[in-house]
Amino acid sequence: MHRREFLGAAVVGVACAGRAVAAVADDAGGGGSLYPVRTIPERSLPVPTTVSPELQKVIAFVNPPNQFAVPKSRAEWAALQAGTPAMLENVTKLRESLGLGLERRVIAGVNCFVITPKDIPKRNRHRLLLHVHGGGYVFGGGESGTYEAVSTAAATQTKVISVDYRMPPDHPFPAAMDDAMAVWKVVATQVPPRNVGFFGISTGGAMVLLMAQRAIREKLPLPAAISAGTPWSDLSKTGDSYFANALVDGVLRQYEGSLESFARIYAGGVDLKDPRLSPIYGTFDGFPPTILTTGTRDLFLSNTVRTHRRLRQAKVEAQLEVYEGVSHGQYAIDHTAPETAEALGEIAAFLDRHLGVADR
Amino acid sequence: MHRREFLGAAVVGVACAGRAVAAVADDAGGGGSLYPVRTIPERSLPVPTTVSPELQKVIAFVNPPNQFAVPKSRAEWAALQAGTPAMLENVTKLRESLGLGLERRVIAGVNCFVITPKDIPKRNRHRLLLHVHGGGYVFGGGESGTYEAVSTAAATQTKVISVDYRMPPDHPFPAAMDDAMAVWKVVATQVPPRNVGFFGISTGGAMVLLMAQRAIREKLPLPAAISAGTPWSDLSKTGDSYFANALVDGVLRQYEGSLESFARIYAGGVDLKDPRLSPIYGTFDGFPPTILTTGTRDLFLSNTVRTHRRLRQAKVEAQLEVYEGVSHGQYAIDHTAPETAEALGEIAAFLDRHLGVADR
Repeated sequence: MHRREFLGAAVVGVACAGRAVAAVADDAGGGGSLYPVRTIPERSLPVPTTVSPELQKVIAFVNPPNQFAVPKSRAEWAALQAGTPAMLENVTKLRESLGLGLERRVIAGVNCFVITPKDIPKRNRHRLLLHVHGGGYVFGGGESGTYEAVSTAAATQTKVISVDYRMPPDHPFPAAMDDAMAVWKVVATQVPPRNVGFFGISTGGAMVLLMAQRAIREKLPLPAAISAGTPWSDLSKTGDSYFANALVDGVLRQYEGSLESFARIYAGGVDLKDPRLSPIYGTFDGFPPTILTTGTRDLFLSNTVRTHRRLRQAKVEAQLEVYEGVSHGQYAIDHTAPETAEALGEIAAFLDRHLGVADR
Repeated sequence: MHRREFLGAAVVGVACAGRAVAAVADDAGGGGSLYPVRTIPERSLPVPTTVSPELQKVIAFVNPPNQFAVPKSRAEWAALQAGTPAMLENVTKLRESLGLGLERRVIAGVNCFVITPKDIPKRNRHRLLLHVHGGGYVFGGGESGTYEAVSTAAATQTKVISVDYRMPPDHPFPAAMDDAMAVWKVVATQVPPRNVGFFGISTGGAMVLLMAQRAIREKLPLPAAISAGTPWSDLSKTGDSYFANALVDGVLRQYEGSLESFARIYAGGVDLKDPRLSPIYGTFDGFPPTILTTGTRDLFLSNTVRTHRRLRQAKVEAQLEVYEGVSHGQYAIDHTAPETAEALGEIAAFLDRHLGVADR
């Protein structure tokens, strides 16, 4: 029988599932599914040779699982959220080498950073990108967290406003979203919304999806396009890659520990599957065109492809980019890697194709 | 330091690779890369709850690793390549229930199956899809192997010609490709090439890529579009998911054993990285628009996304679809699963968008 099953599967010639179930159904069920849980044995994972030397270096770095402790005091929270001098130096150097200006501006009472290319091409003069940073809803803000905003402003040669939204412990859900939406409401009166793109990675990727969903609910203007990088679209441990890519992902490693803690701290008691927290449970009807970016080792691979499918099911133009060997967010970490240029290039081209150019 | 690294990675705020390397570079290198090989510990993998009940059933089926022995005699080869009565019954039932006709036809000396929908919509009357089956270059032919041809003819409501190409042990490389190209040369004189799409899954997915590359090399007509499902684009064990998804993929399981044997039997001594065997090493310049389909657990996830990147680098319109929790080819196994309808629907829409309609 096994040979037949293999044949069927390999040539996609036989719907063999019925027999398969009979073969395994006497095991114990688990994982929320009716079917038995499999054990994947220990195995070796080399750094792939199918990516650039620069990206190999990025992939070779592996965080220890659960090495990131939740702060236990105000001082620890402050230190976490301030970022490090090395981060600030790194992003400042990058920004200056790319010829971008940075200005702090308070919009609708919310701290923002405005990142401006030196010579904006005519086509982009009336365009704007609105950015929300990542960091599990609990860190990643401040000037030291403007790396994505800087690299995307450079790749697109477009002005970026990055929202430095409020965070726990003082400001759990919905403060971050309230801040981002408050900024959007103002920005949408100053720049034609059809000339605006939203972008973000990880938590920021989820937030831009949530922002569009909330704009639709609240009958606010929508941006012309969205770039959601490996979005944390499901804050609960739901989705196959939370299991299949656990410990394969060198950045996030696993759901248990930091990620789960951050989700619960931000949610403040609200169900993690609430569509205001996890956009995958919301509706994607009427969404703007969206580009999604992830990697084959990403713990959020399922978060990304599930979002892609939901968008496609809602007949939204949605483009999926998956980078070889890449863990969470690694496609955007090292601006010297050709894959980073490629990923930002795809995003820039997608936004350029969808954003309007006229001054009103 | 670890907290800083995590911060950097999670918010994509710091290029931390340089320090990472310093931390691990004293380990032994391996896997063809300069960097140390990681060990991924044993872990549990439940059937995902984020897919339909029908697809959960498909995913719950798991082949034992290496259960597929290479035939040791002519009789064993014949049995393998004949398929089973159950497969034939299954595909015949499906075909009849979908109202499709089947005709055997010899084209350019090559056995083919012509699958014809009962009432072809006007828009598709002058269109044709050319199909090459999967099966590791060593099985999957004959009428019992026409499942993909049947399901795609139904999804597209377009006539399909499926090439029953010659296979090892009597006919190793390049017989399969010679047969497919001989059929294409004839078909291209009978139907306007701009009205033709190529499609295939697995080995068939690789073959349609190789066919387009060879058509470009030999200055033959190109089809209007290609659908390559989880293509075996690299016959060598190169690509991250050969490692990361080993034993996670419930269908192919791993490279070692059957897959490697089939590759070597087909290649007949030719280097597995020869671009006539592994299209990833060929050029994609001038390619027709291509849709690629895979799943998050697919052993060929890297084969698929590497191909997607190569196409995009060559400025080819290329659409990537990745299905949640799906192992090799499982998106197309069970025609009752909504995900199968979705995947075939994406492919049908892509082909419809690119194929011409006029009779010449």
